[in-house]
Formats: sequence, C-alpha cells, structure tokens
Amino acid sequence: MKTLELLIKHLSRLPGIGQKSASRLAYYLIGSDNEYNRQLAHAIETIQEVISPCSICNSFSESDPCEVCSDSLRDTSLMCVVEQPQDVLTIGNSGAYNGLFHVLGGALSPLNGIGPQDLDFKKLISRIEEGNFKEIIIATNPTEEGDTTAMYLRHLLKEKQLKITRIASGLPIGGDLEYADKITLSRALRSRVSYND
Amino acid sequence: MKTLELLIKHLSRLPGIGQKSASRLAYYLIGSDNEYNRQLAHAIETIQEVISPCSICNSFSESDPCEVCSDSLRDTSLMCVVEQPQDVLTIGNSGAYNGLFHVLGGALSPLNGIGPQDLDFKKLISRIEEGNFKEIIIATNPTEEGDTTAMYLRHLLKEKQLKITRIASGLPIGGDLEYADKITLSRALRSRVSYND
Repeated sequence: MKTLELLIKHLSRLPGIGQKSASRLAYYLIGSDNEYNRQLAHAIETIQEVISPCSICNSFSESDPCEVCSDSLRDTSLMCVVEQPQDVLTIGNSGAYNGLFHVLGGALSPLNGIGPQDLDFKKLISRIEEGNFKEIIIATNPTEEGDTTAMYLRHLLKEKQLKITRIASGLPIGGDLEYADKITLSRALRSRVSYND
Repeated sequence: MKTLELLIKHLSRLPGIGQKSASRLAYYLIGSDNEYNRQLAHAIETIQEVISPCSICNSFSESDPCEVCSDSLRDTSLMCVVEQPQDVLTIGNSGAYNGLFHVLGGALSPLNGIGPQDLDFKKLISRIEEGNFKEIIIATNPTEEGDTTAMYLRHLLKEKQLKITRIASGLPIGGDLEYADKITLSRALRSRVSYND
C-alpha cells in the first residue's frame, strides 16, 4: 500500500476521525513543517514507554505513584471514583476538586458482558479500608453503564462508615430548556435543589 | 514539558482537533497496541520524504509525473482546475470525472493579500497552450475566494478557443430546503435547470 493511503488508513483508526478527516490531516502533515512531524511522530512512538498505570489509583502517569497520589497538599479524606484515566484529568482541570482519585478502568455493562469481576473493585475496597476516607464521590458517567456502576458501588460500600455521593446530573450550564432531552430534564427536576435551606 | 502534555499539544495543532479531542486521542494512543503507534509514527515521519508536487499538475504524488498525469486512460481533452492537492482526491473519489487536473495551490484572496502573482497561473496557461484541451472545468470552492479565482480564470482564458465551465452550486443532495442558507438557495434558484430541453 502506498505511504499516503497507509497514513490515511492509520489516522482514520483514531477515535472520532473518519475517512475525510483522516485525509485532511494527512494533507496537513504533508504541508506542515518537517520538525513538527518529527516531534509528533516521536511523541506517538514513545508515549507508551513513559506512561504506566499508577499502582495506587490506576490513573495513567509518568511516575509511580502518580502526581495526584503523591501530592501532599491533596485532601486525603476525599476519593473520587471515575471510569477512565482521562476522567482524572477532566475533573482535575475543572479546578473544583482537590481530593484523591480511583480509576475503575470501565463501567459495568451486562449487555457487553462486563461484570463486577472485570473491574478491580477489590483494589478499591482495600484502599478505602486502609485509608482514612470520609467521603467517596462516585463520578462515573451519567449513562446506563455509569449509573449501574454507581448503584453497585453504593451497595458495595453501604456497610462502611462513609459518606457516599454521586456527582449531580441536570441541565448543563449555558444550556437551553427547549433543547434538553426528556431524561436529563426529568433528572434535573427530580434532583431539584431547595432555595429555602 | 511532560511527554503526555507534549503529545496533547502536538495533536491539538492538527486541523479540526481541539484540546479535548487531542487529549482523547492521546489517551487512545496510550491504550492502543504498540505496533499501531509505531506504524502511525513512522507514516507521519516519512510522509514528506515520499510525497512531492507533480511537476505537471502540482498535485501531491509519490511519483513524478503523478498517477493521474501518467494515466493513459484519462481523457486528455478535459482539465479540472482545483485549489488544493486534496481536491484532486475528492473529485477523483466521486467517480464522476476521468480527465486531467491542475492544482492552483490556493485561491485569490485580496483581503489576505493573495493576488494573481501568488498563484502559478503561468504554468496553467502554458500547459493549456501546449496541450489539446477542449474544456476547462473550474472547480475552485464555492466561497468568495474560490468564486473570485473562477472569475479571474474565466477572463484569463476567454481568448482561447476553449469551453470554460464552473462546477454547479446548489442544494446538496439529501439536504432540506428548510435548512438551506439564503445564498445557497438563491444560487440554486438562479442556476435552475430546465426540464423542457
């Protein structure tokens, strides 16, 4: 196969990149400066060598323990449970959270054959038992799989002397009622917040 | 800068890839198989070495003359003038054209200081004079710059004994009148096709 077709084929395997975007990217790479291509190729080639899962929280990191787990300024009484390593970055970037994280590595999905044995709940439980956490925030995605996982975690942790919370679902800020889907709207109504407190 | 941040920074320089998509791609690359990353990196690193502009039509190619220019089954009486090398692929993929191409390398844009001296019209003219073309199809983009370039070409070629055409503008197939913008709709009306012929 020719180099250009091969490059387009490889690029179109990336998530969210279709055939058209891939060919657009390929032509951009043909026209871009050689030094940039070299650096991008190097970063792609070496990323797996320098990144590994943190032995404590499963998040991706260039050091072990990861930056979050080894940060002494973090609130070690708070744990936020997420599905994927990238969720750590997303929540971290929000600036609204200063506790620790735990990455499950996925969500329960009976339809896809992903059950409790496929996610490392044991590691989570023993970490909670050994640590001095006061609150576990379940921040799995607001999807069927994420909600199922949240419910499972809730039952798993109910015996512990811990506050268990779930991040709020509702209308996104800047959104418009008119364009909200039924499920989001009904969840936003059900989870309404009192102004009298 | 750390490797992951560097990879995200490089990826976000690609056209159509913002900060969020870049970080999504980076995490995909961390989790993908090592052989794929190696191949993608290799393709990115070598693409500029193997691709160069065709000396006849300016299109990108791994051989010179390019595959289209050296294809003896092409209709050499037809020339399609496009802005960018990737337009050759796009029109070729439509399956509706079997003539030759000429890549201008851009479009006239007085606002951005791109005038006739910046595009290689001389090469186009001498190619037309030396060849035996019967029709020149101007397939620059239906934008202000593309239309300006088309008008300029029309004047440049009007003395030649040639049929000069412009690809049609109008409603996209599968589109909906309700969602068409005013300019597209007025162009579609002005360019209406008779059913009586």
